[in-house]
Amino acid sequence: VELLIPLDSGNSMPMYEQIYHYIKNEIRNGNLKTRQKLPSSRELAKSLKVSRSTTQLAYEQLVSEGYLEAVPRKGYFTAGLEGIFPPISESKVNANLQEPGEPFSEYHEMENEIDIDFSLRGIDLDSFPFSTWRKISRSVLKEERREILLKGDPQGDRQLREAIRDYLHGARGVNCSADQIVVGAGNEYLLMLLSQLIGTDTGIAMESPTYEQAYRVLTGMGNPVYPVGVDQSGFMVSELEHLPVDVAYVMPSHQFPMGIVMPVKRRQELLLWAGEKDGRYLIEDDYDSEFRYKGKPIPALQGMDTKGRVIYMGTFSRAIAPAIRVGYLVLPESLMKKYWEQARFYSSTVSRVDQKILAGFLQGGFFERHLNRMREVYKWKHDRLLAALKPLEERFEIRGEYAGLHILLSAKGNVTEKELVEAAADEGIRVYGLSDFFIHRDEVREDKTVLLGYAKLDEDKIQTGAERLCEIYSKFTRL
Amino acid sequence: VELLIPLDSGNSMPMYEQIYHYIKNEIRNGNLKTRQKLPSSRELAKSLKVSRSTTQLAYEQLVSEGYLEAVPRKGYFTAGLEGIFPPISESKVNANLQEPGEPFSEYHEMENEIDIDFSLRGIDLDSFPFSTWRKISRSVLKEERREILLKGDPQGDRQLREAIRDYLHGARGVNCSADQIVVGAGNEYLLMLLSQLIGTDTGIAMESPTYEQAYRVLTGMGNPVYPVGVDQSGFMVSELEHLPVDVAYVMPSHQFPMGIVMPVKRRQELLLWAGEKDGRYLIEDDYDSEFRYKGKPIPALQGMDTKGRVIYMGTFSRAIAPAIRVGYLVLPESLMKKYWEQARFYSSTVSRVDQKILAGFLQGGFFERHLNRMREVYKWKHDRLLAALKPLEERFEIRGEYAGLHILLSAKGNVTEKELVEAAADEGIRVYGLSDFFIHRDEVREDKTVLLGYAKLDEDKIQTGAERLCEIYSKFTRL
Repeated sequence: VELLIPLDSGNSMPMYEQIYHYIKNEIRNGNLKTRQKLPSSRELAKSLKVSRSTTQLAYEQLVSEGYLEAVPRKGYFTAGLEGIFPPISESKVNANLQEPGEPFSEYHEMENEIDIDFSLRGIDLDSFPFSTWRKISRSVLKEERREILLKGDPQGDRQLREAIRDYLHGARGVNCSADQIVVGAGNEYLLMLLSQLIGTDTGIAMESPTYEQAYRVLTGMGNPVYPVGVDQSGFMVSELEHLPVDVAYVMPSHQFPMGIVMPVKRRQELLLWAGEKDGRYLIEDDYDSEFRYKGKPIPALQGMDTKGRVIYMGTFSRAIAPAIRVGYLVLPESLMKKYWEQARFYSSTVSRVDQKILAGFLQGGFFERHLNRMREVYKWKHDRLLAALKPLEERFEIRGEYAGLHILLSAKGNVTEKELVEAAADEGIRVYGLSDFFIHRDEVREDKTVLLGYAKLDEDKIQTGAERLCEIYSKFTRL
Repeated sequence: VELLIPLDSGNSMPMYEQIYHYIKNEIRNGNLKTRQKLPSSRELAKSLKVSRSTTQLAYEQLVSEGYLEAVPRKGYFTAGLEGIFPPISESKVNANLQEPGEPFSEYHEMENEIDIDFSLRGIDLDSFPFSTWRKISRSVLKEERREILLKGDPQGDRQLREAIRDYLHGARGVNCSADQIVVGAGNEYLLMLLSQLIGTDTGIAMESPTYEQAYRVLTGMGNPVYPVGVDQSGFMVSELEHLPVDVAYVMPSHQFPMGIVMPVKRRQELLLWAGEKDGRYLIEDDYDSEFRYKGKPIPALQGMDTKGRVIYMGTFSRAIAPAIRVGYLVLPESLMKKYWEQARFYSSTVSRVDQKILAGFLQGGFFERHLNRMREVYKWKHDRLLAALKPLEERFEIRGEYAGLHILLSAKGNVTEKELVEAAADEGIRVYGLSDFFIHRDEVREDKTVLLGYAKLDEDKIQTGAERLCEIYSKFTRL
């Protein structure tokens, strides 16, 4: 079938959603019959003049809602819904389609169109210590104590908080007691909590480009968020004085996505700014500081803070697995007081069993061992990627190396980010444009940079992907 | 030791916190030596002229932070902290004290002061099907699929959502598809999410008295919350027209704490109000509808809603265990659209493993069996309590029976709630004053009512407790 979808770029509804609604309605009202093949996301993108990621997003949602079925190497088909609206049972049809288990917001490798995805999300899970994790889980479940059925401490089990404190103190130079730690089901939840503590109308400065999830949570909470530029030293503290903000959200150990490690001078400037006025805070998001492949680890900003202005955030999603929904806040004393007054009534969002398993994993030394192993795995991937990209060195600047789970490729010559992304996509390789990470479009100061994540890819794909990129980009004669 | 704590009732800091800070400082600066016995919470309350729950709250926090140790039947002692401040390691000392596992905000039965606590929180855990739960957990962990390490669908795994949909449809008459369900780590988290969808500045009407956690979450999110009265039919819809609200938060199946089941006429009035204007919604909190001991289950308000105005909320914390941090929202279509635009980026807060275990528990029929068993257990306790309270019938009205996990005792004669609570407490029995559940003190329209929860108590304690209450209350000659 051909889909003639009337898209309206003036509509506030995102393009992918317009496509999604159109197809859903066509299926619901019977215009699209059961088991019909749809155009590939690439063809549809071409005919609608939108990007392929837009059509793919729409298709994937229709799959996850059960309107479409994705058949590997064949394409998308309408599902067998034979007249079962209204929707009570529609969704049963494709229960099994959810199985591959990729989060919605990561791109599937459907239709064999994208062979190699340098995705910035996800981590290497092949080295996950399944048997250890299972062993600890079993012993936690064996205890059969009523305790694990009860809600427990709102801040998280003391045993877990102590394990986190010990880790943070030893590995990140964070100074705190277990009493200052609040454990929660992921950093998005913890940011929602934190926004209430600092006030949902408090202005917050964020680096731009930045981690978009955090931006969306804070604006969703009502906080006015102001973008701040990033130079070679990271967060441009000088811009703060013109902004109506009392809080700055920073990633000093390894800025996402720029990969910058903030030098100590800039750190001191940040701390000075925060110390100038009561009620000012720095949110230090230390999201992937575990992965540094050269030199000593960069201690956390929190450890330099003598005035109690730094709120430290960390997560186990990257270091262990995304499904481990455990993150934590380290609150300075003034905010602990607020927490007690305003937020202590929130029950812990992490199940007791999960807390105990994680605590066992930390205290048994398994986490450290796992981190050391993963550091080697990622360093190896990182080195492999850089080596394979070497032919591009003359015409690209390669940044962000030696830490984290992605690198940046910036063209020196006359070529746009869009061209780089599309040329790669045409050959089945997905790389990501830097401009997507800016808070407002009009701040985009460079548009020649693409990002390559390597955590999830195996070595062969990294090697092949990098080689093919070298080939593709060598065709840009303007470079 | 005697504690001379200078309390300031004009201070904005709550009394228990003043006591907490005072003792903490005395320990930190060495004025209170290691292993010293403190006055009992009752003695301290008497000497400070505050309520015993205030001193107990302070003590319990000091215990959970590791400053005090609670020795059953002996009392509270300062912990062995021998000069280890600043706080890096202070908290290790008493790691084991956390063990009894009661949430902070529930009162411990320390010091043998309160023998029988008719607590409104907690549930009966003796009947928890541990071996089934463990069996399902093991089989989930055995699969060893990478899938369970990935984040999964932000709304929750489809398998789980379908199991919830089937349950809600069959047991509660809720009309929805799995696509409308959002699973999250407890209803507090889900309310935070919901507040963003309906707008954090939207006015919300809530019954007063009500479920205070929900009130605190919504005000914490910035929503202006307006109290609405409760008559024999529950939520007084007529009061809505004078309030600047577009949303009403209601518990039609079994209002907490009044126990009222909203009749169909009032339900229709609510739905009519909601249907009058676009953007109006009803939040239906169906927190304990599972437990009804007489007649047919009351179907959910959601099932009567033809205009898509009802947001349905439920939880497994009461029906399975508080540590199962899983609740769910059923969103009407208009809010699903908003969810897609504004909140789809929030990762699920429930771990993948937990979702799979719960789905297995539901789909294997274990949940239904467990509910049936618990309904019997609670009915038995409920009947026992009512029977034992029979001698009070002439002088008390007994309300809220045949459903839920608590009852209300209202004195007919000239006696205050405070007297009822205190007379019981003096004899080691804790009952709860209704006035604590009103949003504002000045709305308290009745002050002769106490609440008795029976979920957590065993039969003997229920029997003894009720008998002793009869004895205690028979002494009030004014009744």
